[in-house]
Amino acid sequence: MKKKPVSRKPSPRRKALWAGGYDAAPGKALAKISLSHPFDRRLAAQDLAGSLAHARGLHRAGLLSKSDLEAIAAGLAKIAAEIADGRFVFEDADEDIHMNVERRLAALAGEAGARLHAGRSRNDQVALDLRLWTVAAIDAAQEGLRALGLALLSRAEAWCKEPVVIPARTHLRAGQPVLLSHALLAYVEMLRRDRDRLADCRRRTAVSPLGSGACAGTTLPLDRRAVAESLGMPEITENSLDAVSDRDFAAEFAFAAALTMVHLSRLAEDLILWTGEEFRTLRLSESTTTGSSMMPQKKNPDALELVRGKSGRASGALISLLTTMKGLPLSYNRDLQETQEPLFSAADTLMDSLAAMTEVVRGLSARKASERLPIESGALSTDLAEELVRRGVPFREAHGRVARWTRRAAKDGADFRAIAATEDPGLARFLRRLTPESSVRARDLPGGTAPARVRGEIRRLRKLFQA
Amino acid sequence: MKKKPVSRKPSPRRKALWAGGYDAAPGKALAKISLSHPFDRRLAAQDLAGSLAHARGLHRAGLLSKSDLEAIAAGLAKIAAEIADGRFVFEDADEDIHMNVERRLAALAGEAGARLHAGRSRNDQVALDLRLWTVAAIDAAQEGLRALGLALLSRAEAWCKEPVVIPARTHLRAGQPVLLSHALLAYVEMLRRDRDRLADCRRRTAVSPLGSGACAGTTLPLDRRAVAESLGMPEITENSLDAVSDRDFAAEFAFAAALTMVHLSRLAEDLILWTGEEFRTLRLSESTTTGSSMMPQKKNPDALELVRGKSGRASGALISLLTTMKGLPLSYNRDLQETQEPLFSAADTLMDSLAAMTEVVRGLSARKASERLPIESGALSTDLAEELVRRGVPFREAHGRVARWTRRAAKDGADFRAIAATEDPGLARFLRRLTPESSVRARDLPGGTAPARVRGEIRRLRKLFQA
Amino acid sequence: MKKKPVSRKPSPRRKALWAGGYDAAPGKALAKISLSHPFDRRLAAQDLAGSLAHARGLHRAGLLSKSDLEAIAAGLAKIAAEIADGRFVFEDADEDIHMNVERRLAALAGEAGARLHAGRSRNDQVALDLRLWTVAAIDAAQEGLRALGLALLSRAEAWCKEPVVIPARTHLRAGQPVLLSHALLAYVEMLRRDRDRLADCRRRTAVSPLGSGACAGTTLPLDRRAVAESLGMPEITENSLDAVSDRDFAAEFAFAAALTMVHLSRLAEDLILWTGEEFRTLRLSESTTTGSSMMPQKKNPDALELVRGKSGRASGALISLLTTMKGLPLSYNRDLQETQEPLFSAADTLMDSLAAMTEVVRGLSARKASERLPIESGALSTDLAEELVRRGVPFREAHGRVARWTRRAAKDGADFRAIAATEDPGLARFLRRLTPESSVRARDLPGGTAPARVRGEIRRLRKLFQA
Amino acid sequence: MKKKPVSRKPSPRRKALWAGGYDAAPGKALAKISLSHPFDRRLAAQDLAGSLAHARGLHRAGLLSKSDLEAIAAGLAKIAAEIADGRFVFEDADEDIHMNVERRLAALAGEAGARLHAGRSRNDQVALDLRLWTVAAIDAAQEGLRALGLALLSRAEAWCKEPVVIPARTHLRAGQPVLLSHALLAYVEMLRRDRDRLADCRRRTAVSPLGSGACAGTTLPLDRRAVAESLGMPEITENSLDAVSDRDFAAEFAFAAALTMVHLSRLAEDLILWTGEEFRTLRLSESTTTGSSMMPQKKNPDALELVRGKSGRASGALISLLTTMKGLPLSYNRDLQETQEPLFSAADTLMDSLAAMTEVVRGLSARKASERLPIESGALSTDLAEELVRRGVPFREAHGRVARWTRRAAKDGADFRAIAATEDPGLARFLRRLTPESSVRARDLPGGTAPARVRGEIRRLRKLFQA
Repeated sequence: MKKKPVSRKPSPRRKALWAGGYDAAPGKALAKISLSHPFDRRLAAQDLAGSLAHARGLHRAGLLSKSDLEAIAAGLAKIAAEIADGRFVFEDADEDIHMNVERRLAALAGEAGARLHAGRSRNDQVALDLRLWTVAAIDAAQEGLRALGLALLSRAEAWCKEPVVIPARTHLRAGQPVLLSHALLAYVEMLRRDRDRLADCRRRTAVSPLGSGACAGTTLPLDRRAVAESLGMPEITENSLDAVSDRDFAAEFAFAAALTMVHLSRLAEDLILWTGEEFRTLRLSESTTTGSSMMPQKKNPDALELVRGKSGRASGALISLLTTMKGLPLSYNRDLQETQEPLFSAADTLMDSLAAMTEVVRGLSARKASERLPIESGALSTDLAEELVRRGVPFREAHGRVARWTRRAAKDGADFRAIAATEDPGLARFLRRLTPESSVRARDLPGGTAPARVRGEIRRLRKLFQA
Repeated sequence: MKKKPVSRKPSPRRKALWAGGYDAAPGKALAKISLSHPFDRRLAAQDLAGSLAHARGLHRAGLLSKSDLEAIAAGLAKIAAEIADGRFVFEDADEDIHMNVERRLAALAGEAGARLHAGRSRNDQVALDLRLWTVAAIDAAQEGLRALGLALLSRAEAWCKEPVVIPARTHLRAGQPVLLSHALLAYVEMLRRDRDRLADCRRRTAVSPLGSGACAGTTLPLDRRAVAESLGMPEITENSLDAVSDRDFAAEFAFAAALTMVHLSRLAEDLILWTGEEFRTLRLSESTTTGSSMMPQKKNPDALELVRGKSGRASGALISLLTTMKGLPLSYNRDLQETQEPLFSAADTLMDSLAAMTEVVRGLSARKASERLPIESGALSTDLAEELVRRGVPFREAHGRVARWTRRAAKDGADFRAIAATEDPGLARFLRRLTPESSVRARDLPGGTAPARVRGEIRRLRKLFQA
Repeated sequence: MKKKPVSRKPSPRRKALWAGGYDAAPGKALAKISLSHPFDRRLAAQDLAGSLAHARGLHRAGLLSKSDLEAIAAGLAKIAAEIADGRFVFEDADEDIHMNVERRLAALAGEAGARLHAGRSRNDQVALDLRLWTVAAIDAAQEGLRALGLALLSRAEAWCKEPVVIPARTHLRAGQPVLLSHALLAYVEMLRRDRDRLADCRRRTAVSPLGSGACAGTTLPLDRRAVAESLGMPEITENSLDAVSDRDFAAEFAFAAALTMVHLSRLAEDLILWTGEEFRTLRLSESTTTGSSMMPQKKNPDALELVRGKSGRASGALISLLTTMKGLPLSYNRDLQETQEPLFSAADTLMDSLAAMTEVVRGLSARKASERLPIESGALSTDLAEELVRRGVPFREAHGRVARWTRRAAKDGADFRAIAATEDPGLARFLRRLTPESSVRARDLPGGTAPARVRGEIRRLRKLFQA
Repeated sequence: MKKKPVSRKPSPRRKALWAGGYDAAPGKALAKISLSHPFDRRLAAQDLAGSLAHARGLHRAGLLSKSDLEAIAAGLAKIAAEIADGRFVFEDADEDIHMNVERRLAALAGEAGARLHAGRSRNDQVALDLRLWTVAAIDAAQEGLRALGLALLSRAEAWCKEPVVIPARTHLRAGQPVLLSHALLAYVEMLRRDRDRLADCRRRTAVSPLGSGACAGTTLPLDRRAVAESLGMPEITENSLDAVSDRDFAAEFAFAAALTMVHLSRLAEDLILWTGEEFRTLRLSESTTTGSSMMPQKKNPDALELVRGKSGRASGALISLLTTMKGLPLSYNRDLQETQEPLFSAADTLMDSLAAMTEVVRGLSARKASERLPIESGALSTDLAEELVRRGVPFREAHGRVARWTRRAAKDGADFRAIAATEDPGLARFLRRLTPESSVRARDLPGGTAPARVRGEIRRLRKLFQA
């Protein structure tokens, strides 16, 4: 939607389409709290598609003539165009996208339009719209994850060609040397799981509730499966009461988004650290930073901070959804209107964050080796303990022995390799060859950081992400 | 704001005000994720007030001439008018409300405008704006709580005059008879606590951070206290690093809102039950219900369901805030931009829900006694156990004895009073006088449901809520 | 574990196994906050299984002799027996289950025990233990879901044989008549999705991290896949840094538990309502209620309330996990210790709730038809609107017409069928046959409530849940 | 409680004290889910104190003889001793602490014990116990906050005497120089607010619900205010239905704990960074770190990571509480049992974290100036911009000018002061005197980092925290 569609305040004479049994108009506060077209108009494309499919179903069921179907199809197409152009007028009296469309359709298609809602309720209609919308959001998120995964793989590949060795950290303290590419691949692995979860969620979402009516089905002979298939949904819901009150798919999507956002928050944290003057490993491109309104020298990693901060939004959306659904009796309750904005917020948060992170990753460059912090010799001490194991020393004893040497080295400001070689001259030859690079090469098992392993992983993951 | 202000996409030639040290423009995704004027324009009134106060402070400090101050004041007033009219053009390149205002001020006030940001950063500026906004939101919420409290008290008073006795429920099962008014007062008590909490939160919010600069204060001789007082803030923050990174007030407000929403969700649940055909105690006015798009006979308690559902939104906003702030190092981090929308959402949710609930409560009417469910005699059994206590029977034994009588009554479909009177004729006289009304009168202690107590509570609470 | 194993306070002389490089002992508060064996001893079975598998892997890699392997196997078996008997002494100085086992193994198996930790860190060890534990928890949850599903299906079948018709409610107001069995099946559908989600989660959980070392793998030649298979895990993790810091499986399990708990909270709410004196549809067996310490007559649905309340616990566990992981840099950070108790809490909450709900459902009985609330005629009005559609009236017009009749009926306290038959005599014949039972039969489409459909669903779901 | 009290499985013959009206015993799953003494025994001291106060109230009301009161007092004292010694036997059949105590009291004090529960229900009893417990938890938390505040102040004072200047960071990038002490004071400010919030929460918690009975008060003439005062509670609840179902105090405490934990998570993050080899500002004492089971050289900041991780626990507890209370109808519902463990968990999390953090802070030492990272000249650029303002340049222009100089300096690897002095020789004199130390001194306004200001803040805060 380029232009913003117009909204119109309710007129006292206008009655809602559901209000045949009513004398009084809705109170002011109810009208305000009920009004959902300002956000549910995001479902417009889905609502129009669903209405067309339903109209075709009514036609097949003999409840709608060919000419009525054509009038409806033409009307829906016109409405789509009006919404796209920003010419569509949303009436507050009609509350939501569904009634606004139905009202306009009645104006465009006459009596045919008034026939459309047969065998349908807003309850199954909105459930369908939300499911179609969520399927589209999942597909978009998959694209976003793919782009970020490939950006990380591209950086990983570059830093395999000109290898950058960093200390892998546990507890944010140097542990053992690894390829920087290996660290990037850790994040690609997370994204791979995120994609799996979204694919599972999609399977449970692409299920049509149409034909469930308000809560108890309909007496009209609708062919639910045919309608579902025409909407690209391979399955239909199997219980009408559940169908109109189920928002599991929204909660599951919000969870998948929240966990992905946790992963992005971790990557953001690492990149904020690695690109700073203290860790001095990488550089951000200038176009992914912003300056300060007061301090002239600043170039701040705003994109990364915003992504990290947005993980709060996603967790909040998830809790909103779960809390809203808690304790609701069967079947549809109006509380469910409150599941829409958190769903939209989770999707927006995820998409914006994936795009920003992809932009950041594409702009990353490695600092020159001379600028980078040297890798402390202590990070090699595990290699020595494992060498002792290969020579028959029980590991626990080897660990203790090497720990005493590293302790002495730390106190004396010395290299523990020198101390070890003095204490145990038989190790001197091994220690002479023990470097960050040799250490990286030696961790040559599946999931390890040896260059060949890392290159293999890049190939495997690229295949998965290009699929 | 009546009309929606215009937004303008960034032009490639336009440079942000902070970008003096920059060659490259922000990337597309960073620009999108950085853009905050679509929501932080809600801070416009506060931003303008803060800027005027700061300008006066600069003038007093000898850093701004009288004529410059006047030019700034005139410019700010013009901007306020433009925003009110919807004529103000928000430039995306200027990201937020603060830079948009500064840019426009420079256009209107010339060099004077370019002097305004001395000794100030967006970091202390936005902290001030958010605090001023939250103070206003608290004041509005207090008004909303007051209106709802008075509406409940008015209903409670009416149902004291023509007393409505209902079974007080525990575990949603009839316990002992109480006045319906007593049940409404339970909710007024909750609202009273909510008001207390908001008052405490206001005290901690009305504290001015202006003068904290980007994070470390300023070398310019600002009189922080005078500026604070001119903004109606009795205190100033005492540490610049804390001041720019503190969003405690937002979290505390969100918590107060979330707990109030829990209370409203409980009231909504009770009213949904009490007004239904099964509990048949009260009626909703038609104008606080809505119909169904499919089922012609429906009148649904939508306002109440929406309020109940919205408690999820408030809990989500709270979690968003806490999660976003978790683990942030000193001082300002851009993550904090993500605290704004949850704060706004918490306030909107609270205000809309209070208004809707007030409308519902005002429209409540009691069903006639003949329509209401009769109060089962079992609800009087505690009175008998306490009578036995007054006669010297240990309570635990009295409880057991009466429980056996009620069990027999339930099995025989009898009134336990008849069984008790037969088993223990000495109780017959007491039992003859034991009615729901006598039972209500007898619980005459502070916090009890005796009519005089309830009337006293109404008086006490009305005084508190009218204050 | 029948008996509770003994714990021993740290002695000042005892040094942790990792403390070779240390002079100072841990401070008191650090020791307290570090202590995890009081909860991670729940991982004992998994830890022992993992250690045995690792020992076999070391043996196959030529790093452990056959006799050492046998000594280790015997030692681990003895430790398992000691823990089962409650004779195992947990030393606080050894912090966690892993070091306690390693220490005891060293005492039992001598030098062989000191060889076990080669190529392994607590970081990959605890990741393995937690994954094995979660797989077992998923399997147990599947059993619990199966039992509850079958209990619901059994009740649904009984109430198909002697059909119980209730008003399906939307907004907790009567909508259209359905079989009570249809309502129970709505919950079975939710449980079916819960089972699907858990199955997907299991696939992502049964992945072995062993061989990832502290964060960067090992230089020892371990056959990771063979070890994984011996533990029943079909896959291995593919990145060592990710493997030691990944708790996605815990978050995903906690989400699946939280969403299942939302479903149980909804069922609890419905059953509390349906079994009460106001809705009077069902009865609880006495053994699933409890009495009051003060009110002699009470029989409260405590089991259901506790289940409903416990949904809060599950959502809390989920948020704990997501918040703890937010913003953590690579790779293992000690924060991750805090993921254990929420995981355990989510699993316990789910298991206890499933068992309680199954017990409640098994004890449900339907009230006699004469005791139940009659179904108001208004619940049939949608049938009439759809009949008008079949006669060619546009639905929106039919809805309006019937709404006016139901409105008049409500005002006059009449049956809308009589009014409709008078207004439109052509409908009289249809209306004479329009009963709750005919209405139920007529909703004969997939997902509908017609008895044949419901019976078909029971068969389909029973097959799924018995699988 | 030193020794762990014994628990006994329910015997089939034993009937609960509430079960006078029952034939059937609780089902197995209900019994399990109902069982609360494993955690609510933490309320033992409060329960005994509350029972004694209630007994005295009954005596004053003429419902309990002097000798019965003495027998009860003696019995309660004996029970306290038994619990302290670990000799008290908790019966599972008695479910909770309250019934276990009542049963034992009946055994010890005979008929007198059976008189104690008159005018009281477990509903008001547990509300009282939880409020007394929360008051004690608040007092303990205040002590913990005080200790941590004073530890930070002590470090701040030390680093004022031998001043340590660090770059204050925004966006984790160097901003302007400040005293390290100033940064510590930012955290003391947060703790000060935490103390305020807890004090407010205490005021709302120390309110006695006793006399509210099961939900509707009692017909016995209790003097509620006198009983409350004897328990140290200045106020009583004013509505019986609210009193038994109100857990606001628990939610408010959990929020106060969660926000404090957010503050501690931020301090933890900063200290993890500042003590690392990259930021190299501080050192941790060895006794607040732990080693690795695999990597011999490691000294990890585990205490800090655990504290940071525990902020997840506190947010989870808060959400558990809010979710459990959402949508509950009046009055007591058994769901409320689920509010206890989150409350306990929030308090434990807070206390352990405060203790650990205090230990860490006490062990902090500053690195020598020669080891620390130099402060980049760019951090002084704001001082220059403000100097230009003092010379009459509009700030926005000054900012742009200095930004261009810092950009050139960054490109050339030069000191921007040199470039600025060349470009504008009039600034040379100012620039020669511009050092990190001069910059710190110049920010001499309230909340600023000038040494005199910081010393003043230390004095002010010490007074507050010692109070």
